[in-house]
Amino acid sequence: VQLRVLGSAAGGGFPQWNCGCANCAGVRAGTLRARARSQESVAVSADGEHWFLLNASPEIRAQLESFAPLWPREKRHSPVAGIVLTNGDLDHTLGLLSLRESYPIEVYATAGVRRGFTQGNALYATLERFPEQVRWHALELGREQSLGDRLRVTPLPVPGKLALHLERTSTPSPEDNIGLRIRDLASGKVLAYLPAVAGPSREVTAAVEGADCVFFDGTFWSSDELIASGLGTKRAEDMAHWPVGGADGSLSWLAKLPARRILIHVNNTNPLLREDGPEHAAATAAGVEVAHDGLELRL
Amino acid sequence: VQLRVLGSAAGGGFPQWNCGCANCAGVRAGTLRARARSQESVAVSADGEHWFLLNASPEIRAQLESFAPLWPREKRHSPVAGIVLTNGDLDHTLGLLSLRESYPIEVYATAGVRRGFTQGNALYATLERFPEQVRWHALELGREQSLGDRLRVTPLPVPGKLALHLERTSTPSPEDNIGLRIRDLASGKVLAYLPAVAGPSREVTAAVEGADCVFFDGTFWSSDELIASGLGTKRAEDMAHWPVGGADGSLSWLAKLPARRILIHVNNTNPLLREDGPEHAAATAAGVEVAHDGLELRL
Repeated sequence: VQLRVLGSAAGGGFPQWNCGCANCAGVRAGTLRARARSQESVAVSADGEHWFLLNASPEIRAQLESFAPLWPREKRHSPVAGIVLTNGDLDHTLGLLSLRESYPIEVYATAGVRRGFTQGNALYATLERFPEQVRWHALELGREQSLGDRLRVTPLPVPGKLALHLERTSTPSPEDNIGLRIRDLASGKVLAYLPAVAGPSREVTAAVEGADCVFFDGTFWSSDELIASGLGTKRAEDMAHWPVGGADGSLSWLAKLPARRILIHVNNTNPLLREDGPEHAAATAAGVEVAHDGLELRL
Repeated sequence: VQLRVLGSAAGGGFPQWNCGCANCAGVRAGTLRARARSQESVAVSADGEHWFLLNASPEIRAQLESFAPLWPREKRHSPVAGIVLTNGDLDHTLGLLSLRESYPIEVYATAGVRRGFTQGNALYATLERFPEQVRWHALELGREQSLGDRLRVTPLPVPGKLALHLERTSTPSPEDNIGLRIRDLASGKVLAYLPAVAGPSREVTAAVEGADCVFFDGTFWSSDELIASGLGTKRAEDMAHWPVGGADGSLSWLAKLPARRILIHVNNTNPLLREDGPEHAAATAAGVEVAHDGLELRL
């Protein structure tokens, strides 16, 4: 499996348009040892020819252009063989509406995430201009399914929540937020991809078991990160993210895994973004990396 | 008035994700004398402190970051004082959903464009998280209205069409597509902004009359541009764009205007993108410029 991180930030990106926090102001001014990041999306391929995107960020156009293997090879073409959605958050789905240039796309999602994006969404008509403009592939929890010829994906329910814009109108379900296990048939290598995890669970443990590489929710370092910085009133847990730091944080759990471990979906407020900071050093000491746009790996 | 072009391409941008035409392939390979362009949006300010965006492109995040005067000056802040929509096309509106980080925004649009974006759009709930998260200012055709303290805007109906995703469900109206006349109270200077014009009309003539600077629809060079290049079946007119070239093209009409004239909303297939091509030379000979991302001017 070849993998390229197209975007590594949480919703809003880093820096965020309306944020002048120390991180955002510092990265804009160039005074911080930190890298700007677009919103989370990863491209995965078994053969280097056919690529699957994990999530469709609002910044998908620039992200596709940032990586030459994703450029079209004919007059009308895309190496994007499919898009897998891990939940219905706008930072994971809005990019679909930027793929509206009359070209068929294949989207893999649970029935719940599909409904959340397509029902009552007048904008979606732009992706219904001809039959099968979008071919939806239903992800069924716990069932391994084909992702092209050479990859298999198993979606697992992980603690999370409904997309913000659906909270008032939809009923929560285990289909709302999933982790992915992606297996390469040729090499047997397994990638676990869990960009949003509200906390530990049996399924989370199962999702990473025996994986060669784990991408994991790195949204917040601490529960009160937004509150302490005067930027919000919600705790990490209110937003369904397991904080990385602290005695019960995901880092102490990730530290014990034998896989290559990479934090992704990093919020602009997260002190992990400072490459010379103590939080970054703690992650490194635990053997855990922080994803950045452009990171490539091969399993 | 200060102005900065944040994006100068039509929907899909240049290059376009699924397009390997001579222009797109050439700009990717670096073999064409052409500049990549993001989707059309312009920032306008009378004082350099408060900025109005004309249209909200899907690439708004990168566009705001590309121009330092649009960076926040406090922990939660944006110099974007308002966003004016010229129609409901997704390449003009989708960016609103990327401004969802719990910060109030002011949007100026006709009642028709507002309805087209907010009604039956479940995603819009992300902009309704607190009262007046979006304050809508109704643009009334032909009436001059305030755009902050120092600017005035007059919206004029110009030939155009409904946004693609609304074609099957909405009834066309003169509110669907407008041109803007923006007047600086201090200097008296007038900017005319008409990024989508289906053809000549009395209102189009009125919109540019006496303007110091005119931004005009530069989508297609010729009617059969998509057909001739094997990329589509629609003529420019079917997509409500007045071709630039030819005896009846907008260029021969623009050539007669005394204003500074700049083509914008340029489609990826348009030969005008080639800076060493005969179409570009014809525009230059007529005194007409082609907008590029980052172009700044002062009236």
